[in-house]
Amino acid sequence: MIIVMKPNASAKQIGHVLQRIEDAGFRAHISRGEERTVIGVIGDERHLDPDQWSLLEGVERAMRVLRPYKLASREFHRENTVIELGDVHIGGDQIVIMAGPCSVESKEQILATAQAVKEAGAVILRGGAFKPRTSPYSFQGLGEEGLKLLAEAREATGLLIVTEVMSPDQVPLVAHYADILQIGARNMQNYPLLRAVGETNRPVLLKRGMSSTVEELLLAAEYVLSQGNYQVMLCERGIRTFERVTRNTFDLNAIPVLKELTHLPVIADPSHGVGLWQHVAPVARGAVAAGADGLLVEVHPDPANAWSDGAQSLTPENFTRLVEEVVRVAEAVGRTVARPAPADTSTVAA
Amino acid sequence: MIIVMKPNASAKQIGHVLQRIEDAGFRAHISRGEERTVIGVIGDERHLDPDQWSLLEGVERAMRVLRPYKLASREFHRENTVIELGDVHIGGDQIVIMAGPCSVESKEQILATAQAVKEAGAVILRGGAFKPRTSPYSFQGLGEEGLKLLAEAREATGLLIVTEVMSPDQVPLVAHYADILQIGARNMQNYPLLRAVGETNRPVLLKRGMSSTVEELLLAAEYVLSQGNYQVMLCERGIRTFERVTRNTFDLNAIPVLKELTHLPVIADPSHGVGLWQHVAPVARGAVAAGADGLLVEVHPDPANAWSDGAQSLTPENFTRLVEEVVRVAEAVGRTVARPAPADTSTVAA
Amino acid sequence: MIIVMKPNASAKQIGHVLQRIEDAGFRAHISRGEERTVIGVIGDERHLDPDQWSLLEGVERAMRVLRPYKLASREFHRENTVIELGDVHIGGDQIVIMAGPCSVESKEQILATAQAVKEAGAVILRGGAFKPRTSPYSFQGLGEEGLKLLAEAREATGLLIVTEVMSPDQVPLVAHYADILQIGARNMQNYPLLRAVGETNRPVLLKRGMSSTVEELLLAAEYVLSQGNYQVMLCERGIRTFERVTRNTFDLNAIPVLKELTHLPVIADPSHGVGLWQHVAPVARGAVAAGADGLLVEVHPDPANAWSDGAQSLTPENFTRLVEEVVRVAEAVGRTVARPAPADTSTVAA
Amino acid sequence: MIIVMKPNASAKQIGHVLQRIEDAGFRAHISRGEERTVIGVIGDERHLDPDQWSLLEGVERAMRVLRPYKLASREFHRENTVIELGDVHIGGDQIVIMAGPCSVESKEQILATAQAVKEAGAVILRGGAFKPRTSPYSFQGLGEEGLKLLAEAREATGLLIVTEVMSPDQVPLVAHYADILQIGARNMQNYPLLRAVGETNRPVLLKRGMSSTVEELLLAAEYVLSQGNYQVMLCERGIRTFERVTRNTFDLNAIPVLKELTHLPVIADPSHGVGLWQHVAPVARGAVAAGADGLLVEVHPDPANAWSDGAQSLTPENFTRLVEEVVRVAEAVGRTVARPAPADTSTVAA
Repeated sequence: MIIVMKPNASAKQIGHVLQRIEDAGFRAHISRGEERTVIGVIGDERHLDPDQWSLLEGVERAMRVLRPYKLASREFHRENTVIELGDVHIGGDQIVIMAGPCSVESKEQILATAQAVKEAGAVILRGGAFKPRTSPYSFQGLGEEGLKLLAEAREATGLLIVTEVMSPDQVPLVAHYADILQIGARNMQNYPLLRAVGETNRPVLLKRGMSSTVEELLLAAEYVLSQGNYQVMLCERGIRTFERVTRNTFDLNAIPVLKELTHLPVIADPSHGVGLWQHVAPVARGAVAAGADGLLVEVHPDPANAWSDGAQSLTPENFTRLVEEVVRVAEAVGRTVARPAPADTSTVAA
Repeated sequence: MIIVMKPNASAKQIGHVLQRIEDAGFRAHISRGEERTVIGVIGDERHLDPDQWSLLEGVERAMRVLRPYKLASREFHRENTVIELGDVHIGGDQIVIMAGPCSVESKEQILATAQAVKEAGAVILRGGAFKPRTSPYSFQGLGEEGLKLLAEAREATGLLIVTEVMSPDQVPLVAHYADILQIGARNMQNYPLLRAVGETNRPVLLKRGMSSTVEELLLAAEYVLSQGNYQVMLCERGIRTFERVTRNTFDLNAIPVLKELTHLPVIADPSHGVGLWQHVAPVARGAVAAGADGLLVEVHPDPANAWSDGAQSLTPENFTRLVEEVVRVAEAVGRTVARPAPADTSTVAA
Repeated sequence: MIIVMKPNASAKQIGHVLQRIEDAGFRAHISRGEERTVIGVIGDERHLDPDQWSLLEGVERAMRVLRPYKLASREFHRENTVIELGDVHIGGDQIVIMAGPCSVESKEQILATAQAVKEAGAVILRGGAFKPRTSPYSFQGLGEEGLKLLAEAREATGLLIVTEVMSPDQVPLVAHYADILQIGARNMQNYPLLRAVGETNRPVLLKRGMSSTVEELLLAAEYVLSQGNYQVMLCERGIRTFERVTRNTFDLNAIPVLKELTHLPVIADPSHGVGLWQHVAPVARGAVAAGADGLLVEVHPDPANAWSDGAQSLTPENFTRLVEEVVRVAEAVGRTVARPAPADTSTVAA
Repeated sequence: MIIVMKPNASAKQIGHVLQRIEDAGFRAHISRGEERTVIGVIGDERHLDPDQWSLLEGVERAMRVLRPYKLASREFHRENTVIELGDVHIGGDQIVIMAGPCSVESKEQILATAQAVKEAGAVILRGGAFKPRTSPYSFQGLGEEGLKLLAEAREATGLLIVTEVMSPDQVPLVAHYADILQIGARNMQNYPLLRAVGETNRPVLLKRGMSSTVEELLLAAEYVLSQGNYQVMLCERGIRTFERVTRNTFDLNAIPVLKELTHLPVIADPSHGVGLWQHVAPVARGAVAAGADGLLVEVHPDPANAWSDGAQSLTPENFTRLVEEVVRVAEAVGRTVARPAPADTSTVAA
C-alpha cells in the first residue's frame, strides 16, 4: 500500500502514520517528494483497507499496490486450471460448447433440445429449473421437476448438465442432479451462496454480475476457491451500460484480460451478451477468436413459443450453423472444438 | 402492448400476429401507417413479454405500454404508505433519521454509537451483523452475537433497530431481533430472499442495486408486496457509473421520480451514495430538499479505527451537525424531523 | 508518480527505470517491499504520463500521485473565485439564477420569457441561438438573428445574457452579443473551442460532458484558464448512466466534490439533469441544499409548443414557485438568492 | 409515433390530441384499450419530437416507431456502401487494415512506421497531426508540419493517409493532405465539424463518441450524409463504462448491430477499444470474426518512447503477428485481408 500525505502534512502527522503502520505489523518506507511525502507500506497488504488509512490526519490518499485476490491469480497458480468432467476438459486446448434452453419447460422440450444441441456439437446441456426473473409475474421455473427432466436428458444423450442454483439451501438438491452448478449474474455477490457452492465438490460456472468489474468477479471466485473448491470457471455474459440497442454490452476485452490475470477457464455467453438472436453467432465467433475457452448458448426448438428469453434463443438450425462457424474460427486461432462422444449418439439412437 | 410490423410485412404475417393475440386471450386493434402497420394489444399486458412477440415473422418491435409492476404503483394505491413502528411513522410528514455504524463491532462500540446518534436526533439504529463484503478476506460481521448487541442497544436507548439479512435461512433469526429487515444492494434481485422477507410481518428496507433501474427496484419491491408484506421502504444509495472520484453516484433524480411512481416511502443513504465522509452532509441535505422521507447514515465513534466503511462514516460530532442542517432544510420544504422520545432518554440516563 | 515493479523484476530492469527517471530530470526514491519494489518519482509530475512508464520492462503499474490540473485546483488558489458582472457576483455568498428558453424562437417569445423570469427572480437570461441537435432534421437555432433578439431582451430587462458558442470561428460573434459564453456538454472536450474562449475576456460557463469525469471537467477548465481567462464557472448538468426513466442522472455528489477540489463557481442545471419538467424543482432544491452557487433553468411561456426541450421546460408559473422554494432552501443553508435590480424593473415597466 | 394516454384521460383531452395531430399534417388512429387509449400518428414522423407530445394534457407517453435516421439506414440503401480509394475498397469483401502511430512525431518516426506497417500488411497509414488531449499540458501534435510528414510517408510507401481534423476551419488544410478525414470520438457530436467534412469530397472515418449510442452514431453520420458526402465509415473504438481494468470497453455487439442497421462500412479500433497493447491482437481478432470491415491499429517503432498512447501501441513485430492472425480469422469467416500493392514496395526499396 502507498500512502500519499497532503502537501502541508506536519512532521507529527507523518510520525503518527508511521507509528500506525508499525503497530499493524508492517514496515514503512518514507519518500519525500517536492510537493508531498509518500509512504510505502511493506508486508502482505491484502488485509489492509486503503480507505481506512486515508482517514488519518494529514493523509491525502492511500492506494493498493497488490491485487486483492490471491488464489484466483496467475501469480499464485501459473498454469491454466483444467476442469475435467469425464472426457470433457474445460480450460485446456479444446473449446467446450454448452447449449440448451433458458428454462426447462417440459420433457419433450428438453429432450428434443438436448438431442438437437448434441447433434450440432454441444457437449454440455444448459437449462434452468430455478429461474431468477425480474418480475414476480414471470414464469419462475419448474424447480425440482426441472432438475429431474435435465437428469433424464443426460441419461438419454450423455451430455453433462449445467443449471443454476439460487440460494444456499438449494445447493444440495441442485448438486444432486447437476454436473456443474451455475451462479447467475444477479447472485455473483451472494456470499452465502458462494460459500455454499464452495463447500461442494461440483464445478462452478460463475457468471459476472451485470455491473461487476473484472476484479470483483475474481474476488467472487476467491470466495468459492477459499472454501476449497478450485473448480471454478468464469463467465462473461455482458455488462450494463448506457447502450440499449442491445440487452447488454458484451465485454470482449474481459476475455484476454481474465486470461492474463487468472488461471481459471473463461466461458462466454453470447446469448445474454447481446440479447438478440440474430447477433449471437457473430458475438460467439468474436469471443472464440479472442480466446474464450467455451460458449454458453441459448437454444430452443421454438423460440417464439419459449417461456423465457425467446428473443435471444437460437433455433437448432441456427445453432448448428453457429457451431460450424465457431469450429472454423477455433482452428484459425489454433484450437479445436470438443465433440460429443459418438458412442453416446449411437446409444441414444438405439 | 404495441406491436410494430416491418415495412414489408405481408398480410399473412399480420394475420398470424392477430391470430396469436386472440389465442392469448387479448384483443387486437390494427392501425395502418404510411410506412408500417401498428397493432395495439388490448388486455392486461403484465403477463406478456414484448421480446417474445418481437420474434414473430414480420414483426419489427413490440413495446410495453403499461408499467410492469402493479402493487407498488401509485395507480394501484394513490395515498402514501406510512409504516408505523410505535411512535415512528415512516413515509408521512416527518423525516426519519436512521444512523449507526457499518458493522457492529463490540458492546462498547454499539452502545456508545446508539447513545450518540440518539442524542443527535436519530430514532432508528442501524448496524450490520451479517456483512456482505467484496473480499473474502474482509471482516464478515459478528453474526448472531451482533444481533444480540443491537437488541441490547435498543433496550438501552429505545431506538428501533434496522439490520441486514443476507439469505432466506437467516430471515427468522434476524426477524427475531430486528425491527426492520434490510435487503442490501447486492441482494436486491435475490428473489428467494425477497420472498422470504415478504412472508414475515416485519417492515423491509430495500436498497437499490448498484446497477438497478428505478423500474427494477419497483419490481423487486413487488416481489415482497406480492407475498403480502406491504411495509416496504425503498432506499436510494448511489448507483455505479463511470465516475470514480466518489464511491458511487447518488441518483438524486430517483427521489422525486419514485415519489411520483410509487406510494412507498423513499429513504436516502448519503453515506454509500457518495462514499466520502466529508461530503455526506451536503448529499443528505440535497436528498431531504428533493423529497426523501428519511436518511440512513453511517456513524462511528472512531472512523479511523472502524472495522469497515470508516471512510464514509461520520463522527458523532459531524453527525450532530448534519442533523442540525437537515432540520433546517426539512423546514424549508415544509417538513419536520422526527425526534427521539424524551422519556427514553431519561430511562437510559437512569 | 509511483512506479510498482513486477514481483520478479530484475535488478537490471530496476536500474533501467531509475536511469530513465534521472534522464527525465526527476529524482527516484526506491522502496523494496516483501513482494514488490516500489519507486517514487520526485518532481513536478504533471508532464509525466504514467501509462508510458508502465511500458518499461519489469514495471507492473505506474500511478499518478498529484492531480493533473493546477490552475483550477484549490491548492493553487485557496479562495473562491467570484466572477463579477456588474451587480451580479457568481461564486460568492449569493446564489445566482439563470433562466430562459432552450432556443430563442422569436422576439415575442424571448421578450415574454425574459420579463417573466426576471419577475420570478432570475438575474441572467439563457437562450440558445446556435443549437447542437442530435438529429440533423431538428431545429438548429436562429443563429445571429437569435443573438440580436437576446441583446434586445437584455436591453428591455437589464438581465445579463448567457448563450452557447459551438465553434472557434463563432466566438467573436457570440462574444459581441453575450455576457457569458456557454460551452455545451457535447463540446466540453472541443479543445480548439476551449482555447478560443480562453482568449476572450468573457466569463465562460463550462458544462460537464455527459460522460466526463469530474477530473476531465477540471482539465477542460484548465484549457480555458491556461489561456489567461480565469472567469470560468463549471456546470453539472447530469451524466449518462444505465438509468433511462430520466433523461440524464444528475450527479449531486459532484457539487460538494467540485467545491472541495476547485475555487471555481459551480452551477447546477436541473432541467437537463433530470429532463422531466415535473422533477426540475426538487432537483434544483437539492442542488442548492448541497452547495451549488447558481442554477440554470429552462423556462418557456408555452412548453408544449416549444421548438426544443419542451418536456423539461417550466412554465413561468412553475418557475416562480421553484424560485420561492429555492429562496427558502438557500436560507436554510445560510445563503441568499441574488435578486434582479428593482431599478431595471421600473425601466422595463415604463 | 404512438401516443399513450393516461388511464383517466378525458374525452376532451383525447380530442385535443387528435386535433393537434391533424393540425400538424398527420393522421391519427385511435385504439381504446382496457386501461388506456392509444393513438397512432400516421405520416413521416422523423420531424416529430415525442417528448414534445408527452406534454399535452392527458398524455402519459409518446414513443417513436421509426428510426430517426434515414440516409444511413439499410432501408434507404440496401446494398453495402463500398468506398473506393484507388485499389483499396472499404466495405466490400476485403478487410482493410489501417495502422500507424498515435501522433506524428518526426520524419524518421513516421517513415519507419509507414514502412513497417506496409510490410506487415496495412494499406492505410494513420497518424495524428492535430491531437485532442485531455490535458493542456500534453503534447498537442505537430499541426501542418505533421500533415506534410504524412504526405511524405505516402509518397515513399504508396499507403493512403487517414488523419484527424478537429475544427471546421482546419478542414481545407487537412483535406489537402489526407485521403481520409478522421472525426475523433470527442468530436462525434461537433455538428459544425460534421457539416464541414460533409461538404468535402473526402471519405470520412467517424469514430463513435465514448458515451454515444449506436443510434447517435448513425445520427452523426446522417449529418455528414445529409450534406451530400456519402463516403462515411463508422468506427467502434470502445465506450466508457464502470470497468476500469481496461481504458475503454470495446463494444463487440455494435459490429453486427451496425451491419444490420446501416449500409456504411464498419471499422474497429482495438487499440483504443482496450487500451493495453498486450490485448490489442485478441480484440482485433474478435472484431474481424464478428464482421468488421477494417481495423485501425496504433503501431509505434518504440512504444516506451512514444509521445502519446504508448501503452496501447504495438511494436512492428507485434503488429506483424496481429496481421498474420487476422488473416487466418478473416479466412475462417469467408473474407480476405487487402494487401498493399507489391509495385509500391519495390519503388520504396529503390
